[in-house]
Amino acid sequence: MKKRFVSLMVLLLCVLSLVGAEGTKEQSTQTMQGFGSSERPKYVFMFIGDGMSHVQINAAQVFNGNNTKGDIALSPLSFTQFPVLGLQTTYDATSFCPDSASTATSLSSGIKTHSGVLGMGVDKTTKAENIAEKLKSQKDWKIGIVSTVTLNHATPAAYYAHSPSRNNYYDIGLQLIGSGFDYFAGGSINKATDKGQASIYDLAKANGYTFVDTKEAIEALDANSGKVYAQSPRLQDGGSMPYSIDTDDRDVSLAGFVQKGIDVLDNEKGFFMMVESGKIDWACHANDAAAEISDILAFDDAVKVAIDFAQKHPNETLIVVTGDHETGGMTIGYASTGYNTAFEILKNQKLSYVAFDEIIKGMKSANANLSFDEVMELVTKDFGLVAPNANATDKALVLTEVEYARLQEAFHQSMLPSDKRTKDDVTALLYGGYDPLSVTVTHILNNKAGIGWTSYSHTGTPISVYAKGVGEQLFSGSYDNTDIFHKLRDIVGVN
Amino acid sequence: MKKRFVSLMVLLLCVLSLVGAEGTKEQSTQTMQGFGSSERPKYVFMFIGDGMSHVQINAAQVFNGNNTKGDIALSPLSFTQFPVLGLQTTYDATSFCPDSASTATSLSSGIKTHSGVLGMGVDKTTKAENIAEKLKSQKDWKIGIVSTVTLNHATPAAYYAHSPSRNNYYDIGLQLIGSGFDYFAGGSINKATDKGQASIYDLAKANGYTFVDTKEAIEALDANSGKVYAQSPRLQDGGSMPYSIDTDDRDVSLAGFVQKGIDVLDNEKGFFMMVESGKIDWACHANDAAAEISDILAFDDAVKVAIDFAQKHPNETLIVVTGDHETGGMTIGYASTGYNTAFEILKNQKLSYVAFDEIIKGMKSANANLSFDEVMELVTKDFGLVAPNANATDKALVLTEVEYARLQEAFHQSMLPSDKRTKDDVTALLYGGYDPLSVTVTHILNNKAGIGWTSYSHTGTPISVYAKGVGEQLFSGSYDNTDIFHKLRDIVGVN
Repeated sequence: MKKRFVSLMVLLLCVLSLVGAEGTKEQSTQTMQGFGSSERPKYVFMFIGDGMSHVQINAAQVFNGNNTKGDIALSPLSFTQFPVLGLQTTYDATSFCPDSASTATSLSSGIKTHSGVLGMGVDKTTKAENIAEKLKSQKDWKIGIVSTVTLNHATPAAYYAHSPSRNNYYDIGLQLIGSGFDYFAGGSINKATDKGQASIYDLAKANGYTFVDTKEAIEALDANSGKVYAQSPRLQDGGSMPYSIDTDDRDVSLAGFVQKGIDVLDNEKGFFMMVESGKIDWACHANDAAAEISDILAFDDAVKVAIDFAQKHPNETLIVVTGDHETGGMTIGYASTGYNTAFEILKNQKLSYVAFDEIIKGMKSANANLSFDEVMELVTKDFGLVAPNANATDKALVLTEVEYARLQEAFHQSMLPSDKRTKDDVTALLYGGYDPLSVTVTHILNNKAGIGWTSYSHTGTPISVYAKGVGEQLFSGSYDNTDIFHKLRDIVGVN
Repeated sequence: MKKRFVSLMVLLLCVLSLVGAEGTKEQSTQTMQGFGSSERPKYVFMFIGDGMSHVQINAAQVFNGNNTKGDIALSPLSFTQFPVLGLQTTYDATSFCPDSASTATSLSSGIKTHSGVLGMGVDKTTKAENIAEKLKSQKDWKIGIVSTVTLNHATPAAYYAHSPSRNNYYDIGLQLIGSGFDYFAGGSINKATDKGQASIYDLAKANGYTFVDTKEAIEALDANSGKVYAQSPRLQDGGSMPYSIDTDDRDVSLAGFVQKGIDVLDNEKGFFMMVESGKIDWACHANDAAAEISDILAFDDAVKVAIDFAQKHPNETLIVVTGDHETGGMTIGYASTGYNTAFEILKNQKLSYVAFDEIIKGMKSANANLSFDEVMELVTKDFGLVAPNANATDKALVLTEVEYARLQEAFHQSMLPSDKRTKDDVTALLYGGYDPLSVTVTHILNNKAGIGWTSYSHTGTPISVYAKGVGEQLFSGSYDNTDIFHKLRDIVGVN
């Protein structure tokens, strides 16, 4: 009898402790507070697709999907399969069509501010400490900031800088160095030597940063490299990483920079890595779907590196993937294609609009009297589009007479010095300040594929949030972009 | 000692049963199966905003929000505050830009099928039993089908009919009667007397349906009314309910029809009510934002009726709100307005494009030589837009010279018999088959407000799902539209 009683007591204690643990867990979920230290992640990845909404994400899934009638299927990205989904509103203090500086500040620091302001309130004076700064100062985590665009551009800067204007590039560059963060990677520094001041690069080296910009040196980085600035071996478009569609073996991919970040940052205390794919936004501003989709796929590859890491550290890792706002007013579907799409024709595009502009510029330099026929040959080679009466294997690529006339007019405008081009309401809508020729080529190709654009700016749709790992459940549901900061803060446990 | 042992045994049994219940619950959530009968809802509302994506939803939140710089705020709809959020993919077996018949079939019956097919597989032969039919036959629930469009239109029909073509209106009407469902309300029957056959209305009455179409008779309906067909007192646009923007005291709102549905359907066994706002889609096809936003707000009012009901039956009710696909490629933001929006100017629009078309038609009948100036006067009265040189209190409403020229050309086209109008690629893009004048007026007003459109058809963005009530947790995360049927089936417990 006594033996039986003791057995029962032991069983009861086991059961009671089980119930107790369950109770604590439930409570913490409900209050979004009080994560026990054993439940907190040690490794946090924050992925931001700049300008990336549901449409951009699904466009990549359609692009790689199956468009055969009766067998239609999406090809899912890694993060759209994450267990937790949220939806964030993105308006800032200035507009429902918000800016990247203000939205990144909301994500990093939990406050609404005016368009153009970084890490400061609407008074453009009061600084808001961001999640990366808190993790550095309160938990001594290592911090990584990775972006395909320049590293003192709005989104990365919102994770280390405070400035009344995102355009204070040199000052933001100084704050980059002053942050003491451990891993900067991707694009270059914009205006690193503005107004004859000391180069940000020189100051970075003087402040203990190892600067590398060759593929070999980047690949050699590891946990013993100290504080690192790893810059893309090749730069494009104002010092950013090349568009994924323009890359080859000479380049380090965004996934490569994330893998290297893990190598550099991994340590016993923990790390936080913000990874921005900033040229999704730039391609969408220019209404270039093929370049944008290629960068989304490269972004997805980068997320997969974090997923691989999380599989090795399943109870210590949190991955959040989101965007800051939509760009371009992109739609899957267009008036002239109706219910049809033909995304496969986008695969005829071999380069970004930027790379195409560079080629045309070179041709113009070599030949001031460049003809439309010469350019049309290049348009066929690099985008697949053919003149109305040409023989074409894919009829979807044959220009209509109206499209051909649009392209001829765009060529005419493009060949003029930019101050001689027609500037009126109509050309503003048609070209949006971009080179008339290339933006017309991508518009026509996109429209034929069944993709529409309404803007050259940001738009106001809510943006999805995908989460996987420790604390993921807090990212479920509908909330504001500022809440993402608060959720992260609660999960990692900083004040 | 014996007493103490007995007390411990009782305690232990209580604790074990608690753990057991918890275990079952966790398992059921993971497998999406096995809701205990005490956990099942007895009242299920399925709200479908046809053509309603994040953009349409947020446009309504911006419309009623605050656009004052520094004090920007959305005015939330009721359902965007629901505790659970999901995201559904919407492609059908034909296209990434899917049809309403196929997507409604996916929602109602869990299968993918071709565009245009209702309640049947891709073979256009095999019938799929839908959730409403299952609830009627297996649980004897009462069923309500409510729509602002005709009740044999694609979306409502997917909840009672099976047809290889959504255009078999008469046959679908016969299936409506044959369903034996308990409450049909909203629009009329399309082609009720097709080809001289017996009127669907007469057949409905002969089959025991009480038909009412006056406001008084609708208001008098209750649980003793038997099987009911309650039709909007006034009809518009092919037999649908009038656009909310065109309604007055003579009309019954969608919220009114939902309230009346509760009155008619409420019973001990339970009920399922599908409520479609179908003219959100129609307004988006026509690119008429003011009419569409007004219908979203009316839809939200209808959801609020269900929320009120759920507050009285908190442990017995489930409300799901979603769309079937996006329509029109709507964006909050437009090329010419950039980062600005001015949704407040939409409030100058007094009627839908359909009601405006009717007025113009009447004016044309009365005066074959209707002048542009006469029409412009009406455009100013009903949409607020004023000619370039007119004095205007709100400068945002002054037409540019380019807009004015567009409107003049549209007027010119509109005054021609439709077979004499210019029909080419350009006019197809500009007017999309709609009356050139009204679609140009709404395009210009929308663009000035900062709203863009890319299509007159459906587009391919994923659509959000909002859930509240018993079983809500199953609707969290990313999934396909077909999963919504499976989730509902698991929650209500039918085979």
